[in-house]
Amino acid sequence: MRTIDEHHEQLPFDVFARSCPSRETLGHVTGRWGGLTLCALREDTLRFNELRRRVEGVSEKMLSQTLHALERDGLVARDARPTNPPRVDYRLTPLGQEVTDRLLALVNLLEERMPDVLAAQHSYDARRA
Amino acid sequence: MRTIDEHHEQLPFDVFARSCPSRETLGHVTGRWGGLTLCALREDTLRFNELRRRVEGVSEKMLSQTLHALERDGLVARDARPTNPPRVDYRLTPLGQEVTDRLLALVNLLEERMPDVLAAQHSYDARRA
Repeated sequence: MRTIDEHHEQLPFDVFARSCPSRETLGHVTGRWGGLTLCALREDTLRFNELRRRVEGVSEKMLSQTLHALERDGLVARDARPTNPPRVDYRLTPLGQEVTDRLLALVNLLEERMPDVLAAQHSYDARRA
Repeated sequence: MRTIDEHHEQLPFDVFARSCPSRETLGHVTGRWGGLTLCALREDTLRFNELRRRVEGVSEKMLSQTLHALERDGLVARDARPTNPPRVDYRLTPLGQEVTDRLLALVNLLEERMPDVLAAQHSYDARRA
């Protein structure tokens, strides 16, 4: 997040810019399923069906799309083991771990402050009732 | 992010649970427009049209919905000034500031590491070409 001058001098990426590729990657990381997938993989290397159970509510199709996008961004690695039957493990890359640690700091804060959020919601709804 | 046992003993909120209200709030904070709106307001108190210009590509309707959701969650405050014409300013609440600081840490890391992300994307696409 930089002013335009700093932007031109320092870094070429800015999520505020409509066509900046960082906006798309931010979407993969913070999208409904992308974020939960990264957080689940921060705990452990998981197989597809293990991930599906951990990320409650995700469909097979959405999880598959989510994993492809995260793999393409270099955040998740897919290890196919030559066993019989073949076994595919998903894990975070080092960059994926760094990114997920920041995401988890946000998630943990939100979980912790949900009582305040719920109180604000009740008060907002009461003002409009 | 907790195991089920820790969850029951400590905190009632868990984004992994399908019906947990924290999942909805996380969606507001990290959604395409919610995240950019929070980041824009971290820099300054802004009026609606100033926000619209800062968050490139957002429609009037989406920005309005986004601001209502963030206000209801207690992250954004709306100050209507009794001037003529009336003036409405949007600013972060203290909780909104805390949340946005975590979000910005994530955004800044992604912007910084976009060269690695782009390299991973090229290599992924080349493997599949």
